[in-house]
Amino acid sequence: MSPRSLARYLPVLDWGRRYGRRALSSDLLAAAIVTIMLVPQSLAYAMLAGLPPETGIYASIAPIVLYAIFGTSRALAVGPVAVVSLMTAAAIGAVAEQGTAGYAAAALTLALLSGAFLVLMGVFRLGFLANFLSHPVIAGFITASGLLIATSQLKHILGVPAGGDTLPEMVLSLIEFLGETNLWTLALGGVATAFLVWVRRGLKPTLMGLGLSSGAAGVATKAGPVAAVVATTLVTWGSGLADRGVRIVGEVPQGLPPFTLPPLSLDLLTALAMPALLISVIGFVESVSVAQTLAAKKRQRIDPDQELIGLGAANLGAAVTGGMPVTGGFARSVVNFDAGAETPAAGAFTAIGLLVAALALTPLLYFLPQATLAATIIVAVLSLVDFGILRRAWAYSKADFAAVAVTILLTLGLGVEAGVTAGVLLSLMLHLYKTSRPHVAEVGLVPGTQHFRNIHRHQVETDPTILSVRIDESLYFANARYLEDWILSRIAGSPVRHVVLMASAVNEIDFSGLETLEELNHRLKDAGITLHLSEVKGPVMDRLERTHFLQDLTGRVFLSHFDAMRELASAEPAAAE
Amino acid sequence: MSPRSLARYLPVLDWGRRYGRRALSSDLLAAAIVTIMLVPQSLAYAMLAGLPPETGIYASIAPIVLYAIFGTSRALAVGPVAVVSLMTAAAIGAVAEQGTAGYAAAALTLALLSGAFLVLMGVFRLGFLANFLSHPVIAGFITASGLLIATSQLKHILGVPAGGDTLPEMVLSLIEFLGETNLWTLALGGVATAFLVWVRRGLKPTLMGLGLSSGAAGVATKAGPVAAVVATTLVTWGSGLADRGVRIVGEVPQGLPPFTLPPLSLDLLTALAMPALLISVIGFVESVSVAQTLAAKKRQRIDPDQELIGLGAANLGAAVTGGMPVTGGFARSVVNFDAGAETPAAGAFTAIGLLVAALALTPLLYFLPQATLAATIIVAVLSLVDFGILRRAWAYSKADFAAVAVTILLTLGLGVEAGVTAGVLLSLMLHLYKTSRPHVAEVGLVPGTQHFRNIHRHQVETDPTILSVRIDESLYFANARYLEDWILSRIAGSPVRHVVLMASAVNEIDFSGLETLEELNHRLKDAGITLHLSEVKGPVMDRLERTHFLQDLTGRVFLSHFDAMRELASAEPAAAE
Repeated sequence: MSPRSLARYLPVLDWGRRYGRRALSSDLLAAAIVTIMLVPQSLAYAMLAGLPPETGIYASIAPIVLYAIFGTSRALAVGPVAVVSLMTAAAIGAVAEQGTAGYAAAALTLALLSGAFLVLMGVFRLGFLANFLSHPVIAGFITASGLLIATSQLKHILGVPAGGDTLPEMVLSLIEFLGETNLWTLALGGVATAFLVWVRRGLKPTLMGLGLSSGAAGVATKAGPVAAVVATTLVTWGSGLADRGVRIVGEVPQGLPPFTLPPLSLDLLTALAMPALLISVIGFVESVSVAQTLAAKKRQRIDPDQELIGLGAANLGAAVTGGMPVTGGFARSVVNFDAGAETPAAGAFTAIGLLVAALALTPLLYFLPQATLAATIIVAVLSLVDFGILRRAWAYSKADFAAVAVTILLTLGLGVEAGVTAGVLLSLMLHLYKTSRPHVAEVGLVPGTQHFRNIHRHQVETDPTILSVRIDESLYFANARYLEDWILSRIAGSPVRHVVLMASAVNEIDFSGLETLEELNHRLKDAGITLHLSEVKGPVMDRLERTHFLQDLTGRVFLSHFDAMRELASAEPAAAE
Repeated sequence: MSPRSLARYLPVLDWGRRYGRRALSSDLLAAAIVTIMLVPQSLAYAMLAGLPPETGIYASIAPIVLYAIFGTSRALAVGPVAVVSLMTAAAIGAVAEQGTAGYAAAALTLALLSGAFLVLMGVFRLGFLANFLSHPVIAGFITASGLLIATSQLKHILGVPAGGDTLPEMVLSLIEFLGETNLWTLALGGVATAFLVWVRRGLKPTLMGLGLSSGAAGVATKAGPVAAVVATTLVTWGSGLADRGVRIVGEVPQGLPPFTLPPLSLDLLTALAMPALLISVIGFVESVSVAQTLAAKKRQRIDPDQELIGLGAANLGAAVTGGMPVTGGFARSVVNFDAGAETPAAGAFTAIGLLVAALALTPLLYFLPQATLAATIIVAVLSLVDFGILRRAWAYSKADFAAVAVTILLTLGLGVEAGVTAGVLLSLMLHLYKTSRPHVAEVGLVPGTQHFRNIHRHQVETDPTILSVRIDESLYFANARYLEDWILSRIAGSPVRHVVLMASAVNEIDFSGLETLEELNHRLKDAGITLHLSEVKGPVMDRLERTHFLQDLTGRVFLSHFDAMRELASAEPAAAE
């Protein structure tokens, strides 16, 4: 393998070679800021996934380093993120009881499978598959997931053992346990939530009013969760709230991430394969969109296929170091970027910071209330909820609206896997349905130009003996018969002698389409009508030339529709002699 | 309901009103010929489905009458056909043991379900769904089915109890039993097969040489199976071959079709739902293509949605009169047409002929050898086998070839349901894959015209400050990002100041496509480049006008690409001032 192609698979060889002092100091500063923010976030997302808190920290160490080596984004920070943690909880909750050793082990297997899928998709350059998740489906899924996640955390704010996997189940369970609400927990959680909302909404303008730059103020507001963690931990410790029913994080093992071997029983692999695939794809889409947004700000580009390998390596790393499925997170990446990270080395320094936290800081987290973590999750995910997508999609296209609405409803009502799967399938079916009944326009010449447009929309010139038809779709099996029916109905009882098919919008003619054209040519010939084509594109023409169709065609293939009309009109008098 | 709309659902009201003496005599003659041909064919296809012989005759009586009332084709003859009988055997063989009462009862339930699906599809006008079976998939499926059917009948020619549902199983089972071949059966079956092949290949020219018209000679050759049946029955009876191990049809109940109630247990309905759906769709596709071919010869038209209702009624009729799933058959319809049938009344007269056969002729079938029926099936279905489709598809498109090859291989290796399902899914996936990586062309002006073509294929004029891009696909979620990437790569380091997107081939812009255009507009604006559109189609423009995009667009929307180039080029000097 040449150094050039090796650098494609190991982007670190590219930026590492030019690494200098200035980049080092920028990266170190960014790492310090991100580390402080990541500790509470990692604990919170581990809790969301139903896993021990240290899992979240472990899942931010090896994955960050591996992504720094294999990934292409300069600013992306990988680790546990809200939506993937929710999907993890749903997937492993189906195969093991929360709190058991089997539950944490299943999270490792899920990370391993998900990493393997991502690497395979990267090696086979299947990054384009993510495109099949349409924007409306992603928007609907993220909104519904945000609502699900926020609802799932209410039990920690109330201090009750409510459950449920879907929105109706969660709400019913919360109502059932409402009478058992622990008021100390509610007070602590309520204050933390209100404080975090204020930090998001009100702190930044205040800081900017005090003279801080927008970027610095933004980074400072991201320290809000750290402040909430410190304050509520101190209050809980000082007032002995743990004895009054406030649930705390408790003992978190102190030490390096362990070396773990994910269990690989066939049953487990089979049960987790589908969820792992969905987690891979959703995590990839989320991560790539964050990475692309940040790269665009600095006119850099990312390589989606290499991103698959970077994220895959990160997940494989999580699987063998006691972690959980990870991906590139929006909040942590933005902080990293705003704090001035210049290269993936910032990620490696963050990993060192988290290692120190795992070794030294965990005893300080003993009295941290779970309600504080729940508050940080709720405030983070509610910013993802945007029901406006329903209105915007409705205004633009009913089909897109249907895809969003179904995705949201099924995600809330049946769970994340059902929601996203149904959304993808519905978008594909609606797309196929639309292309199976394409728009067909009869066109005429726009006076004074060589341009042809729909006779029903523009003032155009036509010739009664020539039918100019533009079909607005590729000719493929699902719509092949449609065009034939349209033309045969149109010519019935008309004086048409030539049909010219303007193929400017025909991007492909498949085998079924070819057979339909042959059939149409044959039927028109029987009726004494000549069939011509115009504006056939290069790739389509290349393929037609490999068949007998062009020899059998009763008419000709014209370069432009204008040529066709001119020649056929001038040929008329001669033909009439 | 007005008489007009009633006539839509009951085409009989339309043609029945104008029925006259001339049509009556044509129809009577055609019915007599078809009846003679249908007796052996009905017995044979019942045997193919593993059902008692009389089932085939019953399945040709009520269905023919019901189709005559509800169907739209003048010449279509419905009844058991080869492919549907094979699918029936596969479906009911999975839920009951052949030869048991449960087996025949399951055939009734299958016909009922299939009839219900067809009627529902007709009422909801879902006939277009059949278009998703592409021509190559149908061709591959029919070829593979023909081969499977022919192989399944070899055991009757050899007189051995071989079995198997897939081609490899059948071949292995035949080899296993080869030593037990009954030579009398083989002789009889071999002679019958050779005779029928000669009738197909050699008889028609001979008759035409004797002065018969082509149509009459064609109808006469269709009597070949009847001659074979009569001759081999007489030989078997006269020589006592039944005592030498030649298997005969034996006792066939004499009487009218019974009134039957298909069993409706939930288990049975669940098990048969999917096969019934496939049988409905395949049967519909086969029937409609026969009906369209025959209608076109007389410049008549059929209504596919009403055909669904006609075929659905026929299957419901079969379900309650001791029948089996039916559809419009090619051979019987062609004979009906060639014999001069003018209206669906010919079908009703055929039904009367078959009623007489069921009442009076069945004792004559006692000594009919099963080998003769097998020979008629083999000769009939081998004409369906056409491996040439593989070569033709390969020459035209590798994607279509893949769809045919997979359909053939899976139909032969795993069975009819797996084959056709895989073929449909593969064609859809290949289509989506192709549209997700569309052809994007940079275009220039063909000198002396107003027409723009690909700069790599034609001698064209371009302007280095204006990038003219034609995307050859609708902008939808699966390819939305592709165009953005293409343009952003192309403009990197170029002197381009305007990008004009020629949208002549963009047939739809969905919500994801719109967001991509907004993003592209935004990014180009940051780089000081103006984005314009040209040749946007009416329906696409209507939708864009409902959004903010046109206000935010940095450039303009031009009616034609020529206008765009002229105005942007002339604006250049002013902009440079």
